[in-house]
Amino acid sequence: MKRVIPPVKGTRDFYPEQMALRTWLYGMMRQVSESFGYQEYEAPILESLELYAAKSGEELVKEQAYVFTDRGGDAITLRPELTPSLARMVAQRQKELVFPLRWWSFGPFWRYERPQKGRTREFFQWNVDMIGVNSPEADAEIVAVLVSFFRQVGLRPEQVLVMVNNRRLMDARFDAFEIPPTMRPAVSTWIDRREKMEPKEWLAYGREIGLSERQLGQIGEMLEDRELWRRSEELIRFFAATQAMGIGDYVRFEPSIVRGLLYYTGTVIEAWEVGGEIKRAILGGGRYDNLLADVGGEPLPGVGFAMGDVVITLILEKYGLLPQNLNVYPARILVTVFDQDHLLESFKLADELRSAGLKVACYPEAAKLPRQFRYADRMGMQAVLVLGPDEMANGTVTVKDLRQGAQVQVARREAAAFLKEMLARRA
Amino acid sequence: MKRVIPPVKGTRDFYPEQMALRTWLYGMMRQVSESFGYQEYEAPILESLELYAAKSGEELVKEQAYVFTDRGGDAITLRPELTPSLARMVAQRQKELVFPLRWWSFGPFWRYERPQKGRTREFFQWNVDMIGVNSPEADAEIVAVLVSFFRQVGLRPEQVLVMVNNRRLMDARFDAFEIPPTMRPAVSTWIDRREKMEPKEWLAYGREIGLSERQLGQIGEMLEDRELWRRSEELIRFFAATQAMGIGDYVRFEPSIVRGLLYYTGTVIEAWEVGGEIKRAILGGGRYDNLLADVGGEPLPGVGFAMGDVVITLILEKYGLLPQNLNVYPARILVTVFDQDHLLESFKLADELRSAGLKVACYPEAAKLPRQFRYADRMGMQAVLVLGPDEMANGTVTVKDLRQGAQVQVARREAAAFLKEMLARRA
Repeated sequence: MKRVIPPVKGTRDFYPEQMALRTWLYGMMRQVSESFGYQEYEAPILESLELYAAKSGEELVKEQAYVFTDRGGDAITLRPELTPSLARMVAQRQKELVFPLRWWSFGPFWRYERPQKGRTREFFQWNVDMIGVNSPEADAEIVAVLVSFFRQVGLRPEQVLVMVNNRRLMDARFDAFEIPPTMRPAVSTWIDRREKMEPKEWLAYGREIGLSERQLGQIGEMLEDRELWRRSEELIRFFAATQAMGIGDYVRFEPSIVRGLLYYTGTVIEAWEVGGEIKRAILGGGRYDNLLADVGGEPLPGVGFAMGDVVITLILEKYGLLPQNLNVYPARILVTVFDQDHLLESFKLADELRSAGLKVACYPEAAKLPRQFRYADRMGMQAVLVLGPDEMANGTVTVKDLRQGAQVQVARREAAAFLKEMLARRA
Repeated sequence: MKRVIPPVKGTRDFYPEQMALRTWLYGMMRQVSESFGYQEYEAPILESLELYAAKSGEELVKEQAYVFTDRGGDAITLRPELTPSLARMVAQRQKELVFPLRWWSFGPFWRYERPQKGRTREFFQWNVDMIGVNSPEADAEIVAVLVSFFRQVGLRPEQVLVMVNNRRLMDARFDAFEIPPTMRPAVSTWIDRREKMEPKEWLAYGREIGLSERQLGQIGEMLEDRELWRRSEELIRFFAATQAMGIGDYVRFEPSIVRGLLYYTGTVIEAWEVGGEIKRAILGGGRYDNLLADVGGEPLPGVGFAMGDVVITLILEKYGLLPQNLNVYPARILVTVFDQDHLLESFKLADELRSAGLKVACYPEAAKLPRQFRYADRMGMQAVLVLGPDEMANGTVTVKDLRQGAQVQVARREAAAFLKEMLARRA
């Protein structure tokens, strides 16, 4: 057997079944985003390396991003995330745009990581951002958007939760614990690893990065303190707003949430499956108040989140929430070709039905009728039409209902109305 | 003034206005594709260089494709076209798929060319293909799909035409003119340049590639022969089918159409603006009967076309056919925030209206009311709601109609119904 040229590792082929699912997800995201008044936008897929150099974090740019030199010698990056592009686009038109600006997007991204369950190298991401406002209520709205999405697809708070923390609150604690700012990135990474390591191993790692026994104890205690948020005016207002919007049951304070990306400045969020086996965050986000200035704009505050398509699909699958009636087979009607002499009449008939607003496939060559019927069956069709010499003589078409097996002759000029009525009965 | 980090040359930013246009185009493509029963699919954006090496043509791969080595050392290509990916995907599941297979797609592609009017380096392309059938009627159906698109967006045959030729017909002529197969790629390129060169210069170029005076004369005569298609059984059936489908007025035989890509084997098509100043093809396509075998599959015939988004947008713009009512501003209603004390009640009200199915933005912080009204105006809103101490006391909301300037108080529990009725009147 010959070898078929393989796809690139970490990419996915979207056959019609997978594409219909992606289109459904995209449609859900659109519906939820628009219900809150967010406008759809999209950035280029290629960006300059310079755009990410400032803020995306060492690991993302140096280890994971696809970076290459183009034919003109420029250092190009396949975008690993959208927020820097958003900042660039807003900075470019800062004078003309209307703030508060609410934008959303859904598109492809790349990170060179080891492909595994829940992780591909080429993935799609839903991004939702609000720029120009620095209120805890804006943070809460962003969370309301994603909770609306969870509700829309049927996920309940027993299944998924939004975990919330605040960078400024953490910094105040780190001040109190006398942890110098230079140590804090390492401390954040260390906290982030807690769930993934054995307790002893984790403490040893903490000592390694220079934490004292006192600091280890203080941080350990802090991470267990469910009431810590009451020390943050921002979080008090944030949680009050989530209550007002009726999404409190999906939202929880979690002091161990520290987002890896350098640009977050205030509230940070992650969504996780509750106690499940899917050990990857569903989404991450938070407040970034310096990002516009970093790409050359005037300072403007922002808040947003990004959700990949891979983990959420695993979760929907696990809970049986993937939709059953995806639009995989658009046409419900097949016009068959009786023989070569009737081929063009069949094409004409299909055209008449399309002009009447029906979605119709015509068999594209003369072939044995049983083969054409089998094709209709495998393509999920509901009705098959035959136009042979008898039908031509009578000005009729034969309609076979593939669900019920019944077969009737219908006047050709009434065929469209007949089929519409038949499909409407099924819908 | 600080410098904003610039975008990559040849890419485009899709601000909400541009994104709404792209979404509209995509929607038109979906509607037309589905009306013929085509299923949507999508290939990865990264493919191996090997996939293109076989058939995409020297210029495309060696001069225009974005090729780079990834962190694992593999030669990766940013796809410059979709057909090789389609062939790979079909070859991978050749045993399971149902033929004739009708697939369509819309996504991003890259070619490193000099950006100019009608050409970007990052562009979007609509691809429509039928695989598994080798009939001239299948070729005609593919053309019917694109003519349906032209009609759908309002383009008439006085504005755009589909030009048709056939590779086998050309080869028969080249046989008759005693032009050896090895010379034919150069001859095709030469024919393709005819419109772009002065006649004398063009003839000199023909001599340069080795054509004799007799051959120059024969080819020149052939290119003027509008009846040449009658020598091709395929084209006779093709044109009869376009007549049957009522699209004959959009279709014309044109012997100078030779597609550059090596994989076409039969009928080839291009669409052009009629006598206009837009000197780039709107789309190109044709029959390719060897492509599956080239990527490692069993031989299967195919036919399809690809249309970029840039040239068609220029043409729609030129003829005033871009839609006026794009979905740029999804929310039609703004809930204002009277003051900090009423912020959460406004969030609650917005949530109530959304639950009733309305698209509603809430101002995300306490700000002066005139500023919030100005915001609503600039965001194309139709109604602004106020919820202050009076409204709270009465259980009402104040609704201001931004089009008519009128202002009324409505019971809060009836606000959703009132707004729906108001928006329906406008639609």
